Amino acid sequence: MIVAVIGLGLIGGSMAIESRKSAEVTKILGVDHHPQHAQEALELGLVDEIVSIDQLGVADQVIVSIPVNRIGEVVMQVLDVLHPEAWVMDSGSTKAATCRLVDTHSKRNQYLAAHPIAGTENSGPSAAHEGLFAGKTNIICDHEKTDSRFFEHAQAFFSLLGMKSVFMNAEDHDKHVAYVSHLSHVSSFLLGQTVMDIEKDERNIFALAGSGFESTVRLAKSSPDMWAPIFEQNTEHLGRALQEYIMHLQKFQYLLMKKDTQALHQLMSEANKIRPVLQGIALQNGSKEAKSTQYAKMGLDIDS
Amino acid sequence: MIVAVIGLGLIGGSMAIESRKSAEVTKILGVDHHPQHAQEALELGLVDEIVSIDQLGVADQVIVSIPVNRIGEVVMQVLDVLHPEAWVMDSGSTKAATCRLVDTHSKRNQYLAAHPIAGTENSGPSAAHEGLFAGKTNIICDHEKTDSRFFEHAQAFFSLLGMKSVFMNAEDHDKHVAYVSHLSHVSSFLLGQTVMDIEKDERNIFALAGSGFESTVRLAKSSPDMWAPIFEQNTEHLGRALQEYIMHLQKFQYLLMKKDTQALHQLMSEANKIRPVLQGIALQNGSKEAKSTQYAKMGLDIDS
Repeated sequence: MIVAVIGLGLIGGSMAIESRKSAEVTKILGVDHHPQHAQEALELGLVDEIVSIDQLGVADQVIVSIPVNRIGEVVMQVLDVLHPEAWVMDSGSTKAATCRLVDTHSKRNQYLAAHPIAGTENSGPSAAHEGLFAGKTNIICDHEKTDSRFFEHAQAFFSLLGMKSVFMNAEDHDKHVAYVSHLSHVSSFLLGQTVMDIEKDERNIFALAGSGFESTVRLAKSSPDMWAPIFEQNTEHLGRALQEYIMHLQKFQYLLMKKDTQALHQLMSEANKIRPVLQGIALQNGSKEAKSTQYAKMGLDIDS
Repeated sequence: MIVAVIGLGLIGGSMAIESRKSAEVTKILGVDHHPQHAQEALELGLVDEIVSIDQLGVADQVIVSIPVNRIGEVVMQVLDVLHPEAWVMDSGSTKAATCRLVDTHSKRNQYLAAHPIAGTENSGPSAAHEGLFAGKTNIICDHEKTDSRFFEHAQAFFSLLGMKSVFMNAEDHDKHVAYVSHLSHVSSFLLGQTVMDIEKDERNIFALAGSGFESTVRLAKSSPDMWAPIFEQNTEHLGRALQEYIMHLQKFQYLLMKKDTQALHQLMSEANKIRPVLQGIALQNGSKEAKSTQYAKMGLDIDS
């Protein structure tokens, strides 16, 4: 069985690494429009050969892991050349626009829309590593549009990665990830920028920052090449989430200025209800015990 | 030497634990207006005896670790009863209001204003633990107002805790922590609340959240009893920081709605400059190697 990976970055490269574990996989082809990334992926042994999309007629499974604004068109090109027993999946963080486009292809049932909730703030072929997906959640969208035999192949592949699957339609997916993922990234990017802006003349002031700041701003290290297209594709849902967030911040500021400490206390007590939710996320994210316990053990803690 | 700790929570309790390591310390007294906390601290062996503030004439060193809105008045009461060779310090997260009040006391030179940048999201005597302060930064404010021999005692105590000291005046302290600590907490509290608000009918949607969300919202677990007074005491600086943050978010939203993806990309690239800053914080926070490396090793990573 021949696997092809388009986009040899963190996600695509890591999927190539996991694919090697399957006894059925005889060859892994790679496609990347950055010649340097392609060369690096070859040297790292992530893939066996670099090819172009029009050569993918030989592939039995194709994985598309590129910025979301280009996924739809690339999946269309792949479907054009795929043989009848082959299938293609993507790993994009937004799904509605891609699915709307691919729905128009006569070979739509050879495509599966997926969003593995995994990654690090690092990117490129050298960031790829084994075990990235183990225990993580994979969101599969509109799976009823995929032929059942390809859906079964896909399930086997996600089992190989060690992932749990969750199913929803593409629109619901985009709405929910706007809140539980994209908004966190925006808040982190802009928190980092706000603080750098104010403190630009006194960089050593960051000596005062504790691990709480570090934790809150960590996502500001994420790749703009990946995130700008995600934000562009999820403008409507993210815009609404951002509006809600700004309203909450403005309400907080109003209470702060009014010196209504009791109302601020109440508001924070409400926010504390996130504790069991976060515990659940830590548990589900593949750790044997909750990560909060791991944090404590490592002495990763919050500044005050 | 007799040490007394007022406020037997995470910080005060952990300082009691570290104080035991000094061969000079013969007894540790505890003061807490929650009878249950006092009892728990006794049972845990954090302190040897529970007393009241007016009995602190026997103490040689007094540590005040209570919510910031009450620190000033309590330090004043302690100074009233302290013997001439004893000193008192506090560990509050805001310093200007406390210092303004204590500056009026005739025994001001027996007081040292400190802010150890350490803590966890847990609170109470049972959260106290050894090693909490090791390698962390301690901010000492207006130290020229403290008698040099007490300042030397204080330096020896912070060495015992394993802390590095940074010096600044109380006003500058409050301004800088508004940005590098308090604003992170506000952003986290309200991000948690925004997402819970929207997703309240679909709690299982958090199954889609990855460790990126977990990291960004972690501070929302912090204690309102501790944070409401901090926000109240730092209204002016925090209000300005919050205003800047909201303006950045609104600018982002404007660019998002305009579909100006290039400008969003540019903005995120600017935010990426936080990367070396965060690396520095991780290094300085007492880990032998940067925590980001530890995160990677543990598979603590960012959802996409």
